[in-house]
Amino acid sequence: MAQENLISFQGPVCPVPLQHKDTIVMGHGSGGKMTHDLINLVFRKYFSNAILDAGNDFANVQIPDGNGRLSISTDAHIVSPIIFPGGDIGKLAVCGTVNDMAMSGAVPLYITASFILEEGLPIATLEQIAQSMQEVAQEAGIQIVAGDTKVVEKGKGDGIFISTTGIGWIPDGREIRGDLAQPGDRIIISGTLGDHGIAVLAARGDLGLTTSVQSDVAPLNHLIQTVINAAPQTHVLRDPTRGGLATTLNEIALQSKVGIQLFEETIPVQNEVQSASELLGFDPLYIANEGKLIVIVPEAEVEAVLSAMKNTKYGENCCLIGEVVDKYPGRVFMKTTLGTTRILDMMAGEMLPRIC
Amino acid sequence: MAQENLISFQGPVCPVPLQHKDTIVMGHGSGGKMTHDLINLVFRKYFSNAILDAGNDFANVQIPDGNGRLSISTDAHIVSPIIFPGGDIGKLAVCGTVNDMAMSGAVPLYITASFILEEGLPIATLEQIAQSMQEVAQEAGIQIVAGDTKVVEKGKGDGIFISTTGIGWIPDGREIRGDLAQPGDRIIISGTLGDHGIAVLAARGDLGLTTSVQSDVAPLNHLIQTVINAAPQTHVLRDPTRGGLATTLNEIALQSKVGIQLFEETIPVQNEVQSASELLGFDPLYIANEGKLIVIVPEAEVEAVLSAMKNTKYGENCCLIGEVVDKYPGRVFMKTTLGTTRILDMMAGEMLPRIC
Repeated sequence: MAQENLISFQGPVCPVPLQHKDTIVMGHGSGGKMTHDLINLVFRKYFSNAILDAGNDFANVQIPDGNGRLSISTDAHIVSPIIFPGGDIGKLAVCGTVNDMAMSGAVPLYITASFILEEGLPIATLEQIAQSMQEVAQEAGIQIVAGDTKVVEKGKGDGIFISTTGIGWIPDGREIRGDLAQPGDRIIISGTLGDHGIAVLAARGDLGLTTSVQSDVAPLNHLIQTVINAAPQTHVLRDPTRGGLATTLNEIALQSKVGIQLFEETIPVQNEVQSASELLGFDPLYIANEGKLIVIVPEAEVEAVLSAMKNTKYGENCCLIGEVVDKYPGRVFMKTTLGTTRILDMMAGEMLPRIC
Repeated sequence: MAQENLISFQGPVCPVPLQHKDTIVMGHGSGGKMTHDLINLVFRKYFSNAILDAGNDFANVQIPDGNGRLSISTDAHIVSPIIFPGGDIGKLAVCGTVNDMAMSGAVPLYITASFILEEGLPIATLEQIAQSMQEVAQEAGIQIVAGDTKVVEKGKGDGIFISTTGIGWIPDGREIRGDLAQPGDRIIISGTLGDHGIAVLAARGDLGLTTSVQSDVAPLNHLIQTVINAAPQTHVLRDPTRGGLATTLNEIALQSKVGIQLFEETIPVQNEVQSASELLGFDPLYIANEGKLIVIVPEAEVEAVLSAMKNTKYGENCCLIGEVVDKYPGRVFMKTTLGTTRILDMMAGEMLPRIC
């Protein structure tokens, strides 16, 4: 195991203030290593239980009458600006939760939404967001069944925050989880990386970035149904949101205790996203996506799943990008176009604040 | 029906700014009439479905394999200060959601928590809150199964906001809902009113109010089990949180299309809460509680439920305070100690900001 041949590299991060051990800093919300440390040091320390400790974006639970398994997922959404090219915080909230549920192979059924509104938010903006939530809920085929609204004084919030929780139903016998990747499995991505992060960053307007890139925010449950039909042995499904593809694959490598090898030349990135990223010093592998799917399947099912995905709205640009290996368990590494091997660590602090 | 004999009165409200039709104002988060109008004009307009439109604090849903009914409830918690006599925002969040689930007669099973943290929050404070959540989750007998953490820049939040969603299981045949109150039913309250609101207001320190009143924040699911065992025909259970007893009973009167008559002399209020309320111009009937239970049962079960409740930790000060009548459907009115009849409207705007 020639570890010395690996070039270690980490996604560009903002400097982390020195006081990060004592107070919350932006990096704690990045979805990267600082978020993981906070979860382990504070939340798991107290909340620890077998369901939570499984470490997925969803909780698989049983209800007392025994027949059903449920998938439960929750997310807080804090994007700035709240309306951006391709979507808004409402669409983001519904899609994010639908997708988390669907990643367990569950059929998303119900969603709840709690709103924290800042005094002064135009009611017309709230209506636009509610309408957008309903439209995407209909596309996904779920019902918004409960809600709550609170208002904070001006200057104590940021327009609107939405927390959504989803409840999905897991058909008997379905086992899709982050700890089921096996050496020999292949890794597929459903489309181009980094679109959401770059679209939101450009919409913020404070980096002088002009681009026509739209957020990819989308509900992936129908795409996932297509994947499962084509590849019944699907081992892992995961959406590369905060922290991007690299961070998400690191989580899977750790959960499954396997190595993950990517091939840089096969990873799809739009030209505009690539050039905006280079300009700003970001790496598309660490930028958040909100409508992309990582599929990990046995080699025997790769062709079937790729050809099925190519016929769907949200999977037409899918690509085979890597494989699961038994060397370097817990690590993600990439054969670069230069022929070298680069380690892709989990993102450490924050790269792009408030994009999902 | 001598409506003219009724003296109309409404809980004291802050002036509502003129622009309230166009932008969000604090009153939209009060739990009173403005909140109801916002829900109807914006959220129901788009999200409308049979489950949501039932108008309870919980959603009763079915899952595909047919055997189980679930109760789902969600709440955003924004209290200021985040730590107050008798509790903190974490205890408030877990209790609020446990209680909403239990109000449907459900057995609370699982809870999710999403955190929006403001940059600069001391991690020791977050730990204290997490510990408090776990303690009360254990008391209630539920598991925290999924979570999410996001961070906003300093000045875009207020320390910590917590949104919780609960999933409970409703045993077959159990029907407890806000639309089931019937003329002849009796109304019981589990203890003194207004403790939470006054405790939080005093802790805020900006009204020069000094008091030893503690918040009543508590998980009520075990008390509710006692009530259901003693009174299997229980029609309605509801916790009088935002908007207080008066607003909550108005909701029930509207849902059940009945009148609700209270007797002022029987309504329990601590002396300290009464005097603080008089000093500040508040009415304890409109102040939020976080550990009180309204029970509506047929007359035949009143004695059984009162004597069972008196033996519990959170119900020892329970009282019979009124009855359901067929006159004035949709209205709540009270025989005062002066012998007059006072209409108790739903609270219009806000009375106490940010207390639950």
